Amino acid sequence: MSASSTPSPDVAIGIDLGGTNLRLAGVRRNAEVLLPIRIPTSRFTSTQDLISGISEQIRALDNQLRQQNEKVIGVGIGVPGGVSSDGDVVYFSPNYPEWKNLPLRRLLSEQTGLKIRAENDANTWAYGEGWIGAGRDVKHFVLLTMGTGVGSGIVMNGHVYRGHSGIAGEIGHTTIEPDGHPCECGGCGCLETIASAKGIVRIARELLASGGRGALAGKDPSRLTPEQVSEAAFSGDPLSLEVMERVGRALGIGIVNIINTLNPEIIILGGGVSAARELFTPAMNGEIRRRAFSEIGKRTPILPPLLGENSGILGAARLILEE
Amino acid sequence: MSASSTPSPDVAIGIDLGGTNLRLAGVRRNAEVLLPIRIPTSRFTSTQDLISGISEQIRALDNQLRQQNEKVIGVGIGVPGGVSSDGDVVYFSPNYPEWKNLPLRRLLSEQTGLKIRAENDANTWAYGEGWIGAGRDVKHFVLLTMGTGVGSGIVMNGHVYRGHSGIAGEIGHTTIEPDGHPCECGGCGCLETIASAKGIVRIARELLASGGRGALAGKDPSRLTPEQVSEAAFSGDPLSLEVMERVGRALGIGIVNIINTLNPEIIILGGGVSAARELFTPAMNGEIRRRAFSEIGKRTPILPPLLGENSGILGAARLILEE
Repeated sequence: MSASSTPSPDVAIGIDLGGTNLRLAGVRRNAEVLLPIRIPTSRFTSTQDLISGISEQIRALDNQLRQQNEKVIGVGIGVPGGVSSDGDVVYFSPNYPEWKNLPLRRLLSEQTGLKIRAENDANTWAYGEGWIGAGRDVKHFVLLTMGTGVGSGIVMNGHVYRGHSGIAGEIGHTTIEPDGHPCECGGCGCLETIASAKGIVRIARELLASGGRGALAGKDPSRLTPEQVSEAAFSGDPLSLEVMERVGRALGIGIVNIINTLNPEIIILGGGVSAARELFTPAMNGEIRRRAFSEIGKRTPILPPLLGENSGILGAARLILEE
Repeated sequence: MSASSTPSPDVAIGIDLGGTNLRLAGVRRNAEVLLPIRIPTSRFTSTQDLISGISEQIRALDNQLRQQNEKVIGVGIGVPGGVSSDGDVVYFSPNYPEWKNLPLRRLLSEQTGLKIRAENDANTWAYGEGWIGAGRDVKHFVLLTMGTGVGSGIVMNGHVYRGHSGIAGEIGHTTIEPDGHPCECGGCGCLETIASAKGIVRIARELLASGGRGALAGKDPSRLTPEQVSEAAFSGDPLSLEVMERVGRALGIGIVNIINTLNPEIIILGGGVSAARELFTPAMNGEIRRRAFSEIGKRTPILPPLLGENSGILGAARLILEE
């Protein structure tokens, strides 16, 4: 407060906790990313170890930023799982099965002395894309990420929509095939049993097991990867093309259900599996054209994300910067 | 403005335009309904005739209210169809096929001299239930109406959610069975091809045509009504019970898709077909328990509406009263 103190710009720390990597960075109000770090989560052996590890990284980054005259005003963290609408508690996490009603905010806050806000990771990705990415200046949009599973974040009126108890956006678990394959959630025929890395591998295995031939026939089915399937599809392998067509159909139906329910301005479709978008887009678009309720709905743009890996860090930091 | 003028309480006219009846009334700020009127729409022979008829009814009601010292500040109208988010234009209406981009607000405003707000009818029903009905004090809820088709209104943060162009809430046209029965919308297997009056009749006819027997076997399939099917189901007729079970399953999947996407606090389930709720509720609840993503989702209350026929009038009037 003295005349000699230089007011330094506020910075938030944004964290994207994935199943494979912990990524964090400082983020300025103008969305500039400072000192990004990436650490494999395999380094941590228990929940306690992981929480301590995250806290340690936060403190180290806070110190580094302070040395650069930045003032950290808080920490936003995106986690793979259901987070309470007040951002206090992680109800569950498919990647960290031992997390049940974990008071993440309190734990990190106690260990760092900083203000913490937790959020579902797909929500932070959506919030990042809505800040300076594909959803910039878009009032209503839905982000879908096709990875191991299917995640989603819903932005309405420019804000992440969390629902009554914070668990909105489980679009990966909407039903596409009522009598379809069992899903880890207890249901069956969920979008993520088809339009995800695990869906692609499962369907390819099933087609091979029922006598399917072609580029994948010589491979060990138990070691099949989604990359092998999309590579074979790119070279014209009929079995692999059939897999990608089923992915496209399921995705198209899931997207139409979003369009007919929420009438978003755009849908952002990302995640590792979306790299194969040219393989599944024709079938996806066919379902959208056929099933979207109105001409307006049929024309809903399906766009790729723009921020790559940084969307989660930016969105998590934005939780703090816009508070 | 003179000292002798008595300030009269503001009143809005609420209109619920259905396929069968036009209903309107004055509504006070305390939700009191004044001078309700119901007119069969069969009296009107053309769109022009209907619009003139509505305007005439508005003017007559306005006069009556003025004689009672009420001051009408505007007119809200719920219409069966897609309405632009600014409330100016009716894009389409299944009940009035000749309505294409009809400038309803301008037409009614020119003919009555009053401020007009148009809205999709399911949205006005939801808005009415959210005012003083089953959705009172509920921040996020979805209303589903099972009638000839399936309508829906989404309320988020206490406000009707219209989406980017005003056509959100076509949950009746979300896909339940990807290879199901063709729907009037151009898709197939939509929720409303099953969980509606027309769905019930169609499925009963199909079961009869494929040799089904029992209470309905003697009846003329072309004259079958949903009431006959539910009556037979109430008396234990297996074929009719199967119809209602299919309705319950489809409805349960449709509702789970809403729960997993939007995590509403409650779902309000109304409409004529919902009178048979005890017949389809077991199958519906079975799907919800099985497919809702979390324990919180599985416990989402499914409640009946509280306002009966008045929800549309109240919700339409509320559009004006809360402006």
